[in-house]
Amino acid sequence: MDESGVVNASKHEIVGEVTEVGSKLNKVKVGDKVGVGCMVGACHSCESCKNDHENYCPKVILTYNSIYHDGTFNYGGYSDAMVANERYIVHFPENMPLDSGAPLLCAGITVYSPLKYFGLAKPGKHIGVVGLGGLGHVAVKFAKAFGAKLTVISTSPSKKDEALEHLGADSFLVSRDPDQIQAAMNTMDGIIDTVSAVHPILPLLGLLKSHGTLVMVGVPDKPLELPVFPLLSGRKMVAGSGIGGMKETQEMIDFAAKHGITADIEVVSMDYVNTAMERLAKNDVRYKFVIDIGNTLAATKP
Amino acid sequence: MDESGVVNASKHEIVGEVTEVGSKLNKVKVGDKVGVGCMVGACHSCESCKNDHENYCPKVILTYNSIYHDGTFNYGGYSDAMVANERYIVHFPENMPLDSGAPLLCAGITVYSPLKYFGLAKPGKHIGVVGLGGLGHVAVKFAKAFGAKLTVISTSPSKKDEALEHLGADSFLVSRDPDQIQAAMNTMDGIIDTVSAVHPILPLLGLLKSHGTLVMVGVPDKPLELPVFPLLSGRKMVAGSGIGGMKETQEMIDFAAKHGITADIEVVSMDYVNTAMERLAKNDVRYKFVIDIGNTLAATKP
Repeated sequence: MDESGVVNASKHEIVGEVTEVGSKLNKVKVGDKVGVGCMVGACHSCESCKNDHENYCPKVILTYNSIYHDGTFNYGGYSDAMVANERYIVHFPENMPLDSGAPLLCAGITVYSPLKYFGLAKPGKHIGVVGLGGLGHVAVKFAKAFGAKLTVISTSPSKKDEALEHLGADSFLVSRDPDQIQAAMNTMDGIIDTVSAVHPILPLLGLLKSHGTLVMVGVPDKPLELPVFPLLSGRKMVAGSGIGGMKETQEMIDFAAKHGITADIEVVSMDYVNTAMERLAKNDVRYKFVIDIGNTLAATKP
Repeated sequence: MDESGVVNASKHEIVGEVTEVGSKLNKVKVGDKVGVGCMVGACHSCESCKNDHENYCPKVILTYNSIYHDGTFNYGGYSDAMVANERYIVHFPENMPLDSGAPLLCAGITVYSPLKYFGLAKPGKHIGVVGLGGLGHVAVKFAKAFGAKLTVISTSPSKKDEALEHLGADSFLVSRDPDQIQAAMNTMDGIIDTVSAVHPILPLLGLLKSHGTLVMVGVPDKPLELPVFPLLSGRKMVAGSGIGGMKETQEMIDFAAKHGITADIEVVSMDYVNTAMERLAKNDVRYKFVIDIGNTLAATKP
């Protein structure tokens, strides 16, 4: 996709400029800014694919660590060029930066899609976002752009200023403080839970109004404890949601461009990757590393 | 509500004939067949009440084991007369039997409401019902009346004939048989889970198509294990649902009368209650005991 030294974000949030276009295609032209997200193929005939939910196709082909139709192995964006089927190409509007727009291809659509699907993308809704990391900080930005009231819920009181001052959240709750949770009971229409560690969801169910939805977008590696009575007593729901279809991913990028939404990033070169991994393990990044593959490789060429 | 010796179902599925009507009321008249279900009051001013969901009002007053507005204690239907606010009176159509219609006031609305709310009450939908007891057997009848395809899911292979022959289910799955579960993966639009014992929900999530909903209407006394990845990979949901509002309860009774839906019952007299409790503990009833308070008391009067 790109040989011109532009930014390449990561394993599956990949951006660049179009360098060549197949003769039968008309979605993009040479020189366009484009992205490829988490997937590069699907069956295109099942119910999910027909409903533009390639992400839920049982035969979805992921961009990274997956095998393509032709049997080749997908290594994601760790390259200075890429070939992709046009269905999986996202057009970047002129005002959307490649580097800070790249993480939207996974983190952005992962929070945008459930906000829309569960009826939360509206003024007047009160949305909670659990965890202020790569997904959470983008969720705050989209929720605010939709006109919703937004409360960040975090175990860490130290993130309060960041949430309120920098990201523009309306309020902040420390999830381990029973008094704060009690005071906010039954006030939220929906909660986007971005936490991948095992954690209690009972307090989160309590924060929901009746008919509210707790949407899990993180993936704890062990089952969580699900108390059933709190679901029944308010017809509440716990749902999961994973990225989004290509049509909605394009809609999300267009919406983000219109509202000036990008991810907060730190651009690093390829030789910084091991340090970046160490810092990631300590949550020491605000909020996404973006690897500049193009410029790193260009600098090493004779 | 009743002194005429008609059937009185239980603690909160209460039926009889109207014997007296307040001067400002016009919903029912003396001699009408009516029922009172699980609740007899609520705040009537909160968002839930305004949306006809008195059942989710934080101040809902239950018919049994609860305190009424005036401070009196509610003992449910264990009486041969009852006074109730007209909002909580359900009119029984002429062709709806009092005895076998009574359990619909709890069991019926408990399954009818989520079938409607979660978009399952339609021809072409494939619905699973877990557990074939008081709630489950009524869920099968409503789902079939809606024109859906219905699969009963049970731990007990011995219920197959009952499900298919007597209740008219389309198919039957033994939940402990991995081969049967595997063959039915990703085929159901929704599942009504009536089981109150702690049980695994992972196989049930597997049975759902993407965007499907597992609705818990039983109340296990300990938290269930919730595996998160199966939710994400198909945007699946686990919801709870508890009875329904009064407007929808009337709609349910009218629908049941139109489609000839009643509960399968065994009518017993008051002095049989202890035996009935022992049999209930052994699941030895098909499917609901109905206590005939009126006739029992009439027989003891001098």
